[in-house]
Amino acid sequence: MADSKPLSSLDGNPVTTEALLWDVFGIVVHEAIRKGTNASEKVCEWKEPEELKQLLDLELRSQGESQEQILERCRTVIRYSVKTCHPRFFNQLFSGLDPHSLAGRIITESLNTSQYTYEIAPVFVLMEEEVLKKLRALVGWSSGDGVFCPGGSISNMYAVNLARYQRYPDCKQRGLRALPPLALFTSKECHYSIKKGAAFLGLGTDSVRVVKADERGKMIPEDLERQISLAEAEGAVPFLVSATSGTTVLGAFDPLEAIADVCQRHGLWLHVDAAWGGSVLLSQTHRHLLDGIQRADSVAWNPHKLLTAGLQCSALLLQDTSNLLKRCHGSQASYLFQQDKFYDVALDTGDKVVQCGRRVDCLKLWLMWKAQGGQGLEQRVDRAFALARYLVEEIKKREGFELVMEPEFVNVCFWFVPPSLRGKQQSPDYSEKLAKVAPMLKERMVKAGSMMIGYQPHGALGNFFRMVVANPMLTQADIDFLLNELERLGQDL
Amino acid sequence: MADSKPLSSLDGNPVTTEALLWDVFGIVVHEAIRKGTNASEKVCEWKEPEELKQLLDLELRSQGESQEQILERCRTVIRYSVKTCHPRFFNQLFSGLDPHSLAGRIITESLNTSQYTYEIAPVFVLMEEEVLKKLRALVGWSSGDGVFCPGGSISNMYAVNLARYQRYPDCKQRGLRALPPLALFTSKECHYSIKKGAAFLGLGTDSVRVVKADERGKMIPEDLERQISLAEAEGAVPFLVSATSGTTVLGAFDPLEAIADVCQRHGLWLHVDAAWGGSVLLSQTHRHLLDGIQRADSVAWNPHKLLTAGLQCSALLLQDTSNLLKRCHGSQASYLFQQDKFYDVALDTGDKVVQCGRRVDCLKLWLMWKAQGGQGLEQRVDRAFALARYLVEEIKKREGFELVMEPEFVNVCFWFVPPSLRGKQQSPDYSEKLAKVAPMLKERMVKAGSMMIGYQPHGALGNFFRMVVANPMLTQADIDFLLNELERLGQDL
Repeated sequence: MADSKPLSSLDGNPVTTEALLWDVFGIVVHEAIRKGTNASEKVCEWKEPEELKQLLDLELRSQGESQEQILERCRTVIRYSVKTCHPRFFNQLFSGLDPHSLAGRIITESLNTSQYTYEIAPVFVLMEEEVLKKLRALVGWSSGDGVFCPGGSISNMYAVNLARYQRYPDCKQRGLRALPPLALFTSKECHYSIKKGAAFLGLGTDSVRVVKADERGKMIPEDLERQISLAEAEGAVPFLVSATSGTTVLGAFDPLEAIADVCQRHGLWLHVDAAWGGSVLLSQTHRHLLDGIQRADSVAWNPHKLLTAGLQCSALLLQDTSNLLKRCHGSQASYLFQQDKFYDVALDTGDKVVQCGRRVDCLKLWLMWKAQGGQGLEQRVDRAFALARYLVEEIKKREGFELVMEPEFVNVCFWFVPPSLRGKQQSPDYSEKLAKVAPMLKERMVKAGSMMIGYQPHGALGNFFRMVVANPMLTQADIDFLLNELERLGQDL
Repeated sequence: MADSKPLSSLDGNPVTTEALLWDVFGIVVHEAIRKGTNASEKVCEWKEPEELKQLLDLELRSQGESQEQILERCRTVIRYSVKTCHPRFFNQLFSGLDPHSLAGRIITESLNTSQYTYEIAPVFVLMEEEVLKKLRALVGWSSGDGVFCPGGSISNMYAVNLARYQRYPDCKQRGLRALPPLALFTSKECHYSIKKGAAFLGLGTDSVRVVKADERGKMIPEDLERQISLAEAEGAVPFLVSATSGTTVLGAFDPLEAIADVCQRHGLWLHVDAAWGGSVLLSQTHRHLLDGIQRADSVAWNPHKLLTAGLQCSALLLQDTSNLLKRCHGSQASYLFQQDKFYDVALDTGDKVVQCGRRVDCLKLWLMWKAQGGQGLEQRVDRAFALARYLVEEIKKREGFELVMEPEFVNVCFWFVPPSLRGKQQSPDYSEKLAKVAPMLKERMVKAGSMMIGYQPHGALGNFFRMVVANPMLTQADIDFLLNELERLGQDL
């Protein structure tokens, strides 16, 4: 019935609403943040899936629950979740907690708006523009365009879609059947989203020509030339090269200047997937790793990784000033992008994207940047490099640890060689046995809750650990812990 | 330098970190939530873009700022942002504030993890599965698959990509050039994301065949048949029909049973874009509007709209049990989806999607559902229908208001006819003059900050208001206010 009383689980009573939120926030601060960032607490409390299902009592029922029950559920959810802010969470390319970014995220959630029109997101339309401008300036562009996307994979897809539209605007209306076969180029070390994107965009994974990388994981420009000729000889039209600044596993930076030369010679769109490595642009000391990025047509950069901005904060940056984004993606929905509004409708940026509703991803980065300053963020990047260097030197000193290669970024890849395998490199089953060590240690550390670090095979190399030094709260003590803990966990192997 | 001291703007001091977060949370509760939901406060404080830029001081500088400055920035951001939780915010298909959902969002942000592996998201992998199962049960399926997407537009794209992959698995590798020309069908009242998606997926907007809708906005199944024959005669291969349950402007529900019959006859994938109307499935009284939805192959449903779950919460539901999602989108990245993990790797659901990192969108809905129960959510839906009916009856009673049509959902479309135009329907410039009224009133209400409601032209109809009754806190008094305020704002026109 429609009557005069508002309906909500709390009867719309502002006092009980606020009381609930304060209670939940207290739980968040104590259970997720204080314990989560405390090295003496567990990174995770492992449960087998079936047991965890029981503990969580996930079923959604007809009857609602009391506030006490809801608060207990909040505690349980936090308790059994992995603490990615923990100083011993090294498992992904994101980790740690920036309080200002978290503050920005809480404000974003409370305001709950969509980024599409100035009308309902005046602050965030202007803010997104300013943040993108700053990121572009770090790339080296004084003008351009851009947008925040739901993750780097989608940023990469955007780049591919924009490149094909720029060359064949007909594609938007007539589709790929109206076009010659297209070819795009990326190295074998690229992120898997390039192939996923090619499939999604209708190009097919065959359209992705894989360029060789050198032993450090960097694209070989001469092989790029070769692949372009090969594709042309097979009747395909090359249109884009996706270079990587900071590969996922090895942390390699493709040689952008040389790749840009190739792109220039062949008239190809240069996209740089700097989702991981883009934040190095903040460091005067290390930004040379991305020399040449200013020659790109598009750049994908995820501040939610090395800058700890919180999932997700993924910028797609464009050098374009011809409104390519809007021309490529726009569809002028008349219920949202009315042309007879009382303000400048160029501020309604929603038609630049393929989403309709779009989350606000700029505030968390903006607020953190205001608090830290560019200098503070630069220090973080430099410090991550320095700690990675410390780790490398420690690995070299210790028996039982072997570097996969000298890193140039903050991914440090190494094997832990357990006592029983030391000095047995020549034995025929050494590699096979070594490859089983990392999964075994991973199981042990997760079940102990002492730390989390990722491992993977790579090409011909058997499973090795990939340490990611990203959390700005890390100290040498955490690095020492990592090595000591691996020794402890693997002493009987 | 890598030394033993952690680095952060707060020197990693947990006390100052927590103090900052408590301060910010206090600002959020007072400025965004308490004032935001208070009808006597403004919905928005309008500023011209240039003035707002000055007020926000958006520039990102090298130097960081003090905590006091940061807190003041939080206040400013909230002050000039639109309060979508306000009882007079009627501008979009989302509005209002559910405290439990907000609590879930704050926990999600504090845990900051990605939905891709059980390893780092054990709670949320299991929870997403359970929430999707519940939504599927409401559709009428006892099994199936699904995933949360970053918005309904991307859910719709997924459906189209899955349908073409199911029919032509070759497409993933070889692309659209290896396929015959494809055709998909949707009504002229569909959401604009269908065409955007067709362009993005490489099909081209021409592949979207527009089916006629009746005067209430519902797809005409006989015309669908006609369009299918036409496409076939032109050499295209029909593969998908996208029906809409709850169109964006008129709130119309396509006749799903009749459309499903057509799909069955022609062997076409039936997708239902129920982004807006899906939540009606919770209501025993009104769910008949979606009769036949159980015959769909895929359904897009956004609980962030009518259920107030918070942006974004967009489920794509599938009847498929053959692992189509993973086969279509998977790429087996070896650094993330290792096959030698110590737990069942089927729990690593990240390879179902085209994203890599993916936000956790299930907790907010799950926690709200636990608190409200299915019954509480059902009451909300029923209440929205009842209040929409109240509005319709009021419009009929009042001079100067004219319904565009009898609504079947909670979109109530109407014209406000100002005093100078009343009784002038026959005058040749009546329509032209009436079309100018809504933009003018919109400007006045935004500048006054008294309320926000959307308007648009539609087909041959000039600008009219689209009232959306979605906020569960609305009462008859808010509806009365809407009408009175339009009268007040337009009395001199």
